Amino acid sequence: MAEKYISIRNLKFLLYDVFDVTSLTRHPYFKQHNRKMFDMVLEAAMKLSGSLLHPVFEEMDRKSPELANGQVKVHPVVRDVMKEFGQGGWIAATFPSEYDGEQLPSLIANACCMVFSAANYSASVYPGLTSGAARLILSFGDDALKSTYLPLMLSGKWQGTMALTEPQAGSSLTDIITTASPTPDGYYLIRGRKTFISAGDHDGVDNIVHLMLARIEGAPAGPKGISLFVVPKLRPDAEKALTPNDITVSQIFHKMGYRGAPITELSIGDKNDCRGYLLGEPHKGLGYMFQMMNEERIGVGIGAASIASAAYHAALNYAGSRCQGRNVAAKDPLSPQIPIIEHSDVKRMLLFQRAVMEGAVSLLLQCSWYDDLCRVVSPPEKKRCKLLLELLTPVAKTYASEMGILAVSQSIQCFGGYGYCEDFPVEQHFRDMRIHPIHEGTTGIQGMDLLGRKVVMQNGDAFKAFLEEVGNTVDSARQFPRLQTLSIRLEAAVGRLQDVTRHLVGVAMQKGADIFLADATLYLELFGIVVIAWQWLLQAEKAEQALAGNLSAADIRFYEGKHYTARYFFAYEVPKMEGLIQRLTDGDPLTVEMKPEYFQD
Amino acid sequence: MAEKYISIRNLKFLLYDVFDVTSLTRHPYFKQHNRKMFDMVLEAAMKLSGSLLHPVFEEMDRKSPELANGQVKVHPVVRDVMKEFGQGGWIAATFPSEYDGEQLPSLIANACCMVFSAANYSASVYPGLTSGAARLILSFGDDALKSTYLPLMLSGKWQGTMALTEPQAGSSLTDIITTASPTPDGYYLIRGRKTFISAGDHDGVDNIVHLMLARIEGAPAGPKGISLFVVPKLRPDAEKALTPNDITVSQIFHKMGYRGAPITELSIGDKNDCRGYLLGEPHKGLGYMFQMMNEERIGVGIGAASIASAAYHAALNYAGSRCQGRNVAAKDPLSPQIPIIEHSDVKRMLLFQRAVMEGAVSLLLQCSWYDDLCRVVSPPEKKRCKLLLELLTPVAKTYASEMGILAVSQSIQCFGGYGYCEDFPVEQHFRDMRIHPIHEGTTGIQGMDLLGRKVVMQNGDAFKAFLEEVGNTVDSARQFPRLQTLSIRLEAAVGRLQDVTRHLVGVAMQKGADIFLADATLYLELFGIVVIAWQWLLQAEKAEQALAGNLSAADIRFYEGKHYTARYFFAYEVPKMEGLIQRLTDGDPLTVEMKPEYFQD
Repeated sequence: MAEKYISIRNLKFLLYDVFDVTSLTRHPYFKQHNRKMFDMVLEAAMKLSGSLLHPVFEEMDRKSPELANGQVKVHPVVRDVMKEFGQGGWIAATFPSEYDGEQLPSLIANACCMVFSAANYSASVYPGLTSGAARLILSFGDDALKSTYLPLMLSGKWQGTMALTEPQAGSSLTDIITTASPTPDGYYLIRGRKTFISAGDHDGVDNIVHLMLARIEGAPAGPKGISLFVVPKLRPDAEKALTPNDITVSQIFHKMGYRGAPITELSIGDKNDCRGYLLGEPHKGLGYMFQMMNEERIGVGIGAASIASAAYHAALNYAGSRCQGRNVAAKDPLSPQIPIIEHSDVKRMLLFQRAVMEGAVSLLLQCSWYDDLCRVVSPPEKKRCKLLLELLTPVAKTYASEMGILAVSQSIQCFGGYGYCEDFPVEQHFRDMRIHPIHEGTTGIQGMDLLGRKVVMQNGDAFKAFLEEVGNTVDSARQFPRLQTLSIRLEAAVGRLQDVTRHLVGVAMQKGADIFLADATLYLELFGIVVIAWQWLLQAEKAEQALAGNLSAADIRFYEGKHYTARYFFAYEVPKMEGLIQRLTDGDPLTVEMKPEYFQD
Repeated sequence: MAEKYISIRNLKFLLYDVFDVTSLTRHPYFKQHNRKMFDMVLEAAMKLSGSLLHPVFEEMDRKSPELANGQVKVHPVVRDVMKEFGQGGWIAATFPSEYDGEQLPSLIANACCMVFSAANYSASVYPGLTSGAARLILSFGDDALKSTYLPLMLSGKWQGTMALTEPQAGSSLTDIITTASPTPDGYYLIRGRKTFISAGDHDGVDNIVHLMLARIEGAPAGPKGISLFVVPKLRPDAEKALTPNDITVSQIFHKMGYRGAPITELSIGDKNDCRGYLLGEPHKGLGYMFQMMNEERIGVGIGAASIASAAYHAALNYAGSRCQGRNVAAKDPLSPQIPIIEHSDVKRMLLFQRAVMEGAVSLLLQCSWYDDLCRVVSPPEKKRCKLLLELLTPVAKTYASEMGILAVSQSIQCFGGYGYCEDFPVEQHFRDMRIHPIHEGTTGIQGMDLLGRKVVMQNGDAFKAFLEEVGNTVDSARQFPRLQTLSIRLEAAVGRLQDVTRHLVGVAMQKGADIFLADATLYLELFGIVVIAWQWLLQAEKAEQALAGNLSAADIRFYEGKHYTARYFFAYEVPKMEGLIQRLTDGDPLTVEMKPEYFQD
């Protein structure tokens, strides 16, 4: 039997029962789809993962990319991946049909991304980035840019990237110094250095298209002087011939994990012959880029949750077959050993992994659901969905990433010593996972974004909308006798989140931004627990509804599993709020006061 | 400047100010020592680490051991390490002088181990294991065994191992099936398989000496039928010639980290010609082995804390020199960026690492202190120290290991993307760290040991002695105005630990061992927080005492740093007890109830 890395049953439960993706097909934009087609798409994603991505999961790690003669060489499968994902319509899955897109709901497209990422995270990044970069061109490019780049990117012939970071400007994007000089011919000459560029160069495609931030000469300092450019590795002329565009790979990073994809440092315009093409209006680049950034943040969450999924299923499989020890009460040393899944402590570790992972998957699909609604609902409702998506993006990115590390660590623990060895996949998952709290904005940055911006924006409207959403779930779930306690707990939890938020806003006014934001990371952690508790109550409610019907033994197992995992989350994870709240409200600004020199000895 | 991986200042503070190691020299056993000699020993450890161990920290990871023609080849430095550690007296550091030992206090020897492990964890394991194995022979061997093995092991010519685990008996040691058949010549013929044997074979020494568990033919089933044998790779005859002893390396494991030391699988007695020499009495092997096991558990804690130390100092150094962003309130984008150590969130991450690591180091030295006292105090006090050491061993092992993973993860986070790359040491520390909650007894096993055995043994005497120790610290620390709040909090924390313990013992009686022990891992985590809080109050008290005197600016920085880190621990870590207590007392036995099949879908 092939190794299991994701539960398609769980994805369908979330897509059809929890989020009712089929309801979207009532709207004109999605009307060509139906449930049968969605099922076929999921099936196709599973098949492609099983045949193309998963077989090279290990090999892409062991034979990682190399820089040779200025060109990054990647595993040969990358070319097949880009071709298959292009031809199969995966890169253009959510694009409108006028660009040969499938016009699929994000819900379905992102569920497929989960399948791909769980099978082989590194491989999934190439088409994913290309899709995000192409969408930026679709959103802000003129017809010439669209017709030049979109077909080749969406068909997987050209790779897209996001080229933001510079050696001196990582978390501080405002410090970007790459320059763009206008020329009479309409293009700009770009000069600078970009670093940590995923898929910034490789030989699995015919060209690389960087979506690059730079400052037009004379632009104002700070974030309002940054523009966005399309900067290809090879620039196409009118006859579509390709000329090198003065971009050099100066370095490739050797990483702990995520080794199937190259991360590069680029030197741009050393010969002053790198042409960039302005996307949209000057000086508005950072705002544009955030479209892709937010999409990629959800993408990072998806990657993290999917890695956790693969690790969980590996641990689950092992725990069911590995015999070790006996029940605590069994005293006869000659009685046979039992599968470790029967030990409560192992069940606890598995429940932790499942609660974190399926909770994160649910939240990421919740975000996709808002994204889909934005396309089809009326303007006021659209505004509300957009606010909710913006509010939940840092939470979804971070919860999956930070808790994913702990979840995969517990997968290793289920294996014992074997989990630490290359014979099993979990050690690679552990290494692959660790990048996620870093790329596309560190956890610290996400915390500041949530508390400093999202929660307070538009008079707190996003936060209010969130409270309503949770309130609705509480009201509806408490109808089920087995969910009354959980409903009451969620109501209490969200109430306490509100109290803490109010307290912190008060701190902002009385003591300034510094103290207000000092523990933004903890606030984000607190927020994440409440949000995932909400997602578990949503799931538990659907499970109770289903359990009321006539079910097969397998169905009962599945829904009881959901019920127990929800109970696990409320019993083991929700109580962690207490410690966070104590800290967030105790008023000792010790991390602000602590002098850097006190770290010396 | 050489890379810093440990603070010798911190070690001296703990050794001399907190634990007063010099006071031991009043006792005859330690009377040949004095502070000046202790300082010289520490200095020598630093020098040896800097010259021999740390320069190959990376290289031993990259060029990991290989199995070729039945022989494990390790990095050539291993031979130098064993030689230097033998000749320099490090392997025999705590051994009595009749065996050419230095008769050093464990406090000093373990502080030196911390220096070695922080410099290069893998390298430190070879002499460390040899020392533990030799001590077993010293404790339980007859004169022939002692004279044959001790000189060669203590001089670093022969490697010692602990050979317990078998493929079917990992956490469940009672299921060991390796057999020992008595022969008329006094030795036993051993047959079986042992796995995950650290340093189980290598070419950096002339021989390997396994301290091996096996069952004598006809022995009772279960733990009371296990005996301990000395089983060399090459057996010395009366003329000291060495003959192969029928042990084959069947496999070497390729691991995520800790790659500088080989972990092997051994096939023993395939030709029925493997001779083992009984250590001590038959059937008492498991008990004997626990002497080494407990020593190695402290050793694992030391390894984990030391890796966290190296990662912390790397992060601290980076955070002080890497400029990124501005103060939250600074709006001018043209103002220079600031070192990231000035951001509150980065200070928080550094304080977390320091609190975890220096807290764990302190606890490990507290254990060493009890160990030293056992040698010199009167019988009733000795019994008390032994109980305290036994109680705290699973806590010291696990706290350093589990929290060490999180600490090193935060070191990576301080570096951002660079931390994920091989250019900096923290990614290796992250990989090296992950073994610690597994080897020498998983965290789950430690939890059962603490709650199921240590806390309740001898009518709870160990636990009572612990409460007294903490009470003494509270009483003495509350004399200092700046420590009143922390003292009150520790008093409350230890009170709640007592309540939870009482509650759980009640559960044991009413609901049985299964439910009692289901969350033993969480109980261990709770216990760990209280124990480390105690260690921080101890340190904070010594800092306050020192700050009352006339100090240099550097001293003030150091002691204020201690004060703030203690405050950090009470503000951010102690509140985590709340969530654990809620869970430990909520009465829902869901992990016991949850059926394994509910994980299926």
